[in-house]
Amino acid sequence: MQTLTPVSACRHTTTIHVTTTQVTQFIDLTDRLERLVADADLRFGIVNVQTLHTTTAIIVNEHEPLLLTDFQALFEAVAPGAGRYQHDDMQARTVNVTEGERPNGHAHCRALLLPPSVCLNVTGGRLLLGRWQRVFLVELDGPRERDLSVIVFGETGR
Amino acid sequence: MQTLTPVSACRHTTTIHVTTTQVTQFIDLTDRLERLVADADLRFGIVNVQTLHTTTAIIVNEHEPLLLTDFQALFEAVAPGAGRYQHDDMQARTVNVTEGERPNGHAHCRALLLPPSVCLNVTGGRLLLGRWQRVFLVELDGPRERDLSVIVFGETGR
Amino acid sequence: MQTLTPVSACRHTTTIHVTTTQVTQFIDLTDRLERLVADADLRFGIVNVQTLHTTTAIIVNEHEPLLLTDFQALFEAVAPGAGRYQHDDMQARTVNVTEGERPNGHAHCRALLLPPSVCLNVTGGRLLLGRWQRVFLVELDGPRERDLSVIVFGETGR
Repeated sequence: MQTLTPVSACRHTTTIHVTTTQVTQFIDLTDRLERLVADADLRFGIVNVQTLHTTTAIIVNEHEPLLLTDFQALFEAVAPGAGRYQHDDMQARTVNVTEGERPNGHAHCRALLLPPSVCLNVTGGRLLLGRWQRVFLVELDGPRERDLSVIVFGETGR
Repeated sequence: MQTLTPVSACRHTTTIHVTTTQVTQFIDLTDRLERLVADADLRFGIVNVQTLHTTTAIIVNEHEPLLLTDFQALFEAVAPGAGRYQHDDMQARTVNVTEGERPNGHAHCRALLLPPSVCLNVTGGRLLLGRWQRVFLVELDGPRERDLSVIVFGETGR
Repeated sequence: MQTLTPVSACRHTTTIHVTTTQVTQFIDLTDRLERLVADADLRFGIVNVQTLHTTTAIIVNEHEPLLLTDFQALFEAVAPGAGRYQHDDMQARTVNVTEGERPNGHAHCRALLLPPSVCLNVTGGRLLLGRWQRVFLVELDGPRERDLSVIVFGETGR
């Protein structure tokens, strides 16, 4: 364990915009997050990555293309795209109905089982990630325009 | 990206008490959380919402009543209420046995797949949530008395 | 709600090393985390516990041995160990291939449905946990050597 007197507070907030191109898609955010930590000169603290949508998620896992297809198969097993969802019954539904509403109950159900935000540690000026850990935005109802909020919070080296 | 010199630190901690009335229930906490951020005059930082129970969860998703019934169906598919759980075998169990113990293995299993806490960003004095994002306490073994802890942490505008 | 002027900032970062001994294993971290908060003399703030691996997770649930076998059964139902995963097809795979690669697609899929980090509140010098809440590292592809990062962040009582 290591205790240091804080030098000066540091906080940055940024929005990352992503245009997704597929129905289900994994967008690797890791390089962008590492750059944010470096640009902020954050020495110690946290990075909180939050999606601003209800049919997306933030996950941390390995970036191996075949594994990402396994994840898609898991989503399909847990909440089938062709399943029946009350949320998609436009005869019955009266709340939050918008024009051109997509049938996306399956995407909300998939998002329910994944985190909407992930809080990661920063120490020694580096976003702490294990050898295989990569941070992804998961698109579950694309293609769409998506926004994430990232907060970098802690002590600077300046 | 935006960097500002901190004005003054701000932190509030509060407990939210909820009396749930149904076996499975979604309690929308969003208005209360937004009020907490406003009352604290938090300009920049995080809000960490944590349940204090093992058969509840904190989720972020759309508040559309039919969708919430889809979520219940998903819980039932993933961990059926009528399934067999070792945790409910009172002949075999010796640990953490209390009087009037409910058979709630299914509720623990459902909670396992949902977050016990959610960390959300605050910027410009506002809890950052997308258009459809609402924060819920999910009751998985009600009715019960439940407590949540909320920490509001960052810089004030005062 | 309670507002106090900060006394002095406090932050500690530590790595916890765990040698797991079983394929699936739940390692209770709660006592160690409580000690970290006490040693840091953290009065108010957060503890962020993050795994550094992609086939592990951090969960909060009850420490009852039979319940942990229910969790194993749930993992097996959601992502069977004997299932077929593209990630394990070494004829097809070209990315991140290492010597002695284990077939562990099921473990990645299980990890996908569990949190890689958990952010918990500290108030009054105490890690806030409900009566039955315990924090676990979940090993999903053991036995292995595993590392966690813990950040303790907030105000000290000193």
